[in-house]
Amino acid sequence: MTGRKSFGSDNHAGAHPAVLRAIVEANTGDAVAYGADGWTEQVTARLREAFRADGGAYLVLNGSGANVLGLGVLLRRHEAVVCADSAHVYTDECGAPERVLGTKLLPVPAADGKLTPELIAGQLSGRGDEHFAQPGVVAVSQSTEFGTCYTLAELRKIADFCRSSDLRVFLDGARLANAAASLDCSLAELAECADVLTFGGTKNGAMGAEALIVTRPDLAADVPYLRKQQTQHASKMRFVAAQFGALMQDDLWRSNAAHANAMARRLADGASTVDGVEIVYPVQANAVFARLRPQHIAALQRDWTFHVWNERDSVVRWMTAFDTSAADVDAFLADIRSTATR
Amino acid sequence: MTGRKSFGSDNHAGAHPAVLRAIVEANTGDAVAYGADGWTEQVTARLREAFRADGGAYLVLNGSGANVLGLGVLLRRHEAVVCADSAHVYTDECGAPERVLGTKLLPVPAADGKLTPELIAGQLSGRGDEHFAQPGVVAVSQSTEFGTCYTLAELRKIADFCRSSDLRVFLDGARLANAAASLDCSLAELAECADVLTFGGTKNGAMGAEALIVTRPDLAADVPYLRKQQTQHASKMRFVAAQFGALMQDDLWRSNAAHANAMARRLADGASTVDGVEIVYPVQANAVFARLRPQHIAALQRDWTFHVWNERDSVVRWMTAFDTSAADVDAFLADIRSTATR
Amino acid sequence: MTGRKSFGSDNHAGAHPAVLRAIVEANTGDAVAYGADGWTEQVTARLREAFRADGGAYLVLNGSGANVLGLGVLLRRHEAVVCADSAHVYTDECGAPERVLGTKLLPVPAADGKLTPELIAGQLSGRGDEHFAQPGVVAVSQSTEFGTCYTLAELRKIADFCRSSDLRVFLDGARLANAAASLDCSLAELAECADVLTFGGTKNGAMGAEALIVTRPDLAADVPYLRKQQTQHASKMRFVAAQFGALMQDDLWRSNAAHANAMARRLADGASTVDGVEIVYPVQANAVFARLRPQHIAALQRDWTFHVWNERDSVVRWMTAFDTSAADVDAFLADIRSTATR
Amino acid sequence: MTGRKSFGSDNHAGAHPAVLRAIVEANTGDAVAYGADGWTEQVTARLREAFRADGGAYLVLNGSGANVLGLGVLLRRHEAVVCADSAHVYTDECGAPERVLGTKLLPVPAADGKLTPELIAGQLSGRGDEHFAQPGVVAVSQSTEFGTCYTLAELRKIADFCRSSDLRVFLDGARLANAAASLDCSLAELAECADVLTFGGTKNGAMGAEALIVTRPDLAADVPYLRKQQTQHASKMRFVAAQFGALMQDDLWRSNAAHANAMARRLADGASTVDGVEIVYPVQANAVFARLRPQHIAALQRDWTFHVWNERDSVVRWMTAFDTSAADVDAFLADIRSTATR
Repeated sequence: MTGRKSFGSDNHAGAHPAVLRAIVEANTGDAVAYGADGWTEQVTARLREAFRADGGAYLVLNGSGANVLGLGVLLRRHEAVVCADSAHVYTDECGAPERVLGTKLLPVPAADGKLTPELIAGQLSGRGDEHFAQPGVVAVSQSTEFGTCYTLAELRKIADFCRSSDLRVFLDGARLANAAASLDCSLAELAECADVLTFGGTKNGAMGAEALIVTRPDLAADVPYLRKQQTQHASKMRFVAAQFGALMQDDLWRSNAAHANAMARRLADGASTVDGVEIVYPVQANAVFARLRPQHIAALQRDWTFHVWNERDSVVRWMTAFDTSAADVDAFLADIRSTATR
Repeated sequence: MTGRKSFGSDNHAGAHPAVLRAIVEANTGDAVAYGADGWTEQVTARLREAFRADGGAYLVLNGSGANVLGLGVLLRRHEAVVCADSAHVYTDECGAPERVLGTKLLPVPAADGKLTPELIAGQLSGRGDEHFAQPGVVAVSQSTEFGTCYTLAELRKIADFCRSSDLRVFLDGARLANAAASLDCSLAELAECADVLTFGGTKNGAMGAEALIVTRPDLAADVPYLRKQQTQHASKMRFVAAQFGALMQDDLWRSNAAHANAMARRLADGASTVDGVEIVYPVQANAVFARLRPQHIAALQRDWTFHVWNERDSVVRWMTAFDTSAADVDAFLADIRSTATR
Repeated sequence: MTGRKSFGSDNHAGAHPAVLRAIVEANTGDAVAYGADGWTEQVTARLREAFRADGGAYLVLNGSGANVLGLGVLLRRHEAVVCADSAHVYTDECGAPERVLGTKLLPVPAADGKLTPELIAGQLSGRGDEHFAQPGVVAVSQSTEFGTCYTLAELRKIADFCRSSDLRVFLDGARLANAAASLDCSLAELAECADVLTFGGTKNGAMGAEALIVTRPDLAADVPYLRKQQTQHASKMRFVAAQFGALMQDDLWRSNAAHANAMARRLADGASTVDGVEIVYPVQANAVFARLRPQHIAALQRDWTFHVWNERDSVVRWMTAFDTSAADVDAFLADIRSTATR
Repeated sequence: MTGRKSFGSDNHAGAHPAVLRAIVEANTGDAVAYGADGWTEQVTARLREAFRADGGAYLVLNGSGANVLGLGVLLRRHEAVVCADSAHVYTDECGAPERVLGTKLLPVPAADGKLTPELIAGQLSGRGDEHFAQPGVVAVSQSTEFGTCYTLAELRKIADFCRSSDLRVFLDGARLANAAASLDCSLAELAECADVLTFGGTKNGAMGAEALIVTRPDLAADVPYLRKQQTQHASKMRFVAAQFGALMQDDLWRSNAAHANAMARRLADGASTVDGVEIVYPVQANAVFARLRPQHIAALQRDWTFHVWNERDSVVRWMTAFDTSAADVDAFLADIRSTATR
């Protein structure tokens, strides 16, 4: 880290002050452990309502945990998962779903990180033949790993296809807030398109808190046991709940996400005018993917923190967060411009 | 919860003020995610030194996570675990080790929750025969589920036996601080007796933070991957690290534990003088197990929070925490006395 | 092996001549692989009918495979299994169910190897609490590891209890033939008491063939995929089917079992008259458990093959098979008598 | 099946008469179960010698079982497998390796089904970073799913690359005999290039028998336990051993394979002269992949059994077996010619 604002990850940001305040305020005397406390009861009821999730909301500790738990709730014992080959569950979790669930992930090359009914259908040819992996769940990410968002219409098409094809929909919502802000839609509208989804708090300003949202009541019964077995059950749960309490208060989650999205937009707009910089995916959330000249990248990295996404193609990823300021973006843009002309 | 101090669990307590302060202080700007930050580097170095653990210290999110990860680091793919039939990993984790690791736990009835070389040896008769589960790891808890502690001599005997029997030792240290305080020994002296152990922060005053301590350097290489796969890797790791930073500062962990132990001692001493109350295990940490008359239990539970451990035998468990005061204990004792005489 | 008839295991016997004939006869030209052949279709239809098993019959390769598959068909992802602590799945399969299914087995001490509703009920106290293993399946063995048989009334009581307690019944029928012969009942009467059961061919005179019987049609859909994933699907399936074809022909399975049972009876009757020999379990199938003096055991083992079941208690196990002759038994009895008087 | 010789699979063939004879001959009285019999001891010693395999030879029941066991022997708990995207373990086993081992398979598009050091190297970029799957094993198939063979030089290059890259080599040898016959090399020359390999008996004329060959002695200790846990341990093992005994006798395995290869060669040579037929992979074992006109395929399938491998590209697979005769091939060729000209 260089001391300047990081564009490396929305995980590089700290916690939102309101989140910390909520944690401190929750530290009042005793509370029953493992979620039977007032903070947890209140915030899970609130999440359940916001998502209109008849199967309930369940707090967990991190994004991998939420993803593996969500897939586990949906999968029959022998089933496989269809996902984009860029999906976080496929590429960034060290094989956690395979290890913990014993499932096979069937990766599909997907432009902009987005699946379509056609792409999903292409994975179903071996159904009913015991030699082939049997897809039971389709995993979509909203927003995607490439900072794109499915439109509600796109998501609904996938959901409809899946429902008519005996497939369940899992939605990885580590950045669901960014998507909801980008689409200017409600959480419930997104939840309608999934059987189980995650709602990421950590990248949105929490210290470490994610929620599993179960829209179908028939899926709820096993969640507590699976969460415990998958080691995602917190004893002092009130402190996880308090974080979500702060994010849900006055829709802080939405303003945090909208701000991060706006900063990404500002960055992309500015950078796209720089010679030698090409924005490679639509900027629909809080990520900007750009192609730069290799020496340009090297020069920028001396002072700024960000990931080279694809070294061969000279593509970098710039992430913004709830606490990225316009001044941060402008300072970065100034250096993008100046290094480009060297 | 009744508003009075809970004797239900050391997980009912909140966080120690110093822990919260450390979290707030860690919230300064950006930090690289997933543990490559200064807080994590510093505190894991400190833990490594305190435990003289050449394999390093690794932060995780909760006790079940620490236990499953620790067993996973030690087990060859086909091996089984010998443990006391009262062990937390056997009875209280919903079968998490079996689910995540696919291992078999071989429970041994053990007085006071403590294994001995003789009890372990009794599980080895099928070794070398492929039809029988093959013990590879012995899991001990320090302090035990019954609030007892192995002496260092007892632990060393187990360690010696295991080393000469091709068995590795896993030590569940969810309450290791209480044991170290009780035995007045160093963390390193305890670590000497195990290949991998856990060091519990949560029950000691953290919000949610546990450490995996690896004493053998040859075991270290796989830990980061296993931690990631088992969904115990925190993105904003600095906030987990900060908690341990506070506990390690001036050995706060030890004073917290010593205080909790003293409160348990005070409670046991007081209760043992009450007619109809029998203390059923040696009180060597922060738990008191007592046999009461059934109607006595019912009366006490109206105003106080605690677990009935064994309904049939009328045995209850009373836990103390870092924030249990002498006044709390005395008020509880007064009611124990008054309900006993009704 | 000493050249004399082994009393070590019904697995020591070879294959029944009719089984070998059927294999040779099935070797006529090509057949579609993986069970889409006439032999398989015919014999699975026949098994389905004999067991009145609306979920169908599925051929597998060995007993461990049948047991793990059967449990896997019945278990929800997070559930545990209640079984007798003497159950083969618990003691003799190297932890295969835990490894392959990730389930926890909850062993219950059970006299004569037989569970009862009361013993099962004792394992249900933690239901609904996510910290405790959640029993979903009860595994019974018929005949048991101790050569005893549940009566039909006993089995029905277990089945009724399980059905009214949201538990499914798995029946390990590695020696189901011996039980059916002993109880003089039909296979369908036994199948009525289970959701899934196995029907062992191997110990009954096959070379290597077991059947999984699924009584509930709603459980059938996943079996072929689970069988494939658990590596129990044979490519040249007709040769597995042919073995069962021979055993089903004129109920050869029943006469094989009845003969083995009669030989065990003859052996027990003879041995029980010998001074210093005590039969320790009711002899209701093809196993005789006897307590002998240690020096008696040692003397006998010079000439005869059998297992010392429990060295400490001087208990041995004598198994009979479809090909154990009365002369074999009488020769063995003569030596039991003569060594006893030395 | 049409009554004519199947070109659908080498699994459609029955057993070689010598195999059946060996089984019948092994049915002489009692034998100790689970492999402690003379047949098993003899044939595993012979396999060990033929492969110069210091880690020993282990008999299992089918190809999926051999593959999963072999990968399991080689994988550290957290590791992933690099394989061709056409590999049987990736495409044809319903996700068995993922389910049983919890490993992730990393598929690589590979021309002719053959990996190269360059293709393998392309999967190693995330090594050392805990977020990414960590390859520990490279799985090659010999012969491949496309009927091609690695040359010994190609295999050695892969083995050298792997050894210098901390990767172990697993070789799926379901059709190893066909490769050895095709390359005119010894089994030991092939075994030199792998840490663990399988030697398929079933497709070579056995009824159902595969061998796991472990070349490194340090890997041998865990095999029996893993085989038992993975339900691949036969009780009446002598009948599995007898099958391999027959195949090893006078190198029957080689003549069976050489014959099948020759028939594939004959078929390919004949078909390649037919207008509208294109052979799409080098014919180096017992498989012929051909592109035909769709209506040509439909016409042929009326009378002959074979698989359409790729419907979109009109590619079919024709397999030959140890019992495919020249007359069978010629009759098939005649129909290929006549349907092509319609």
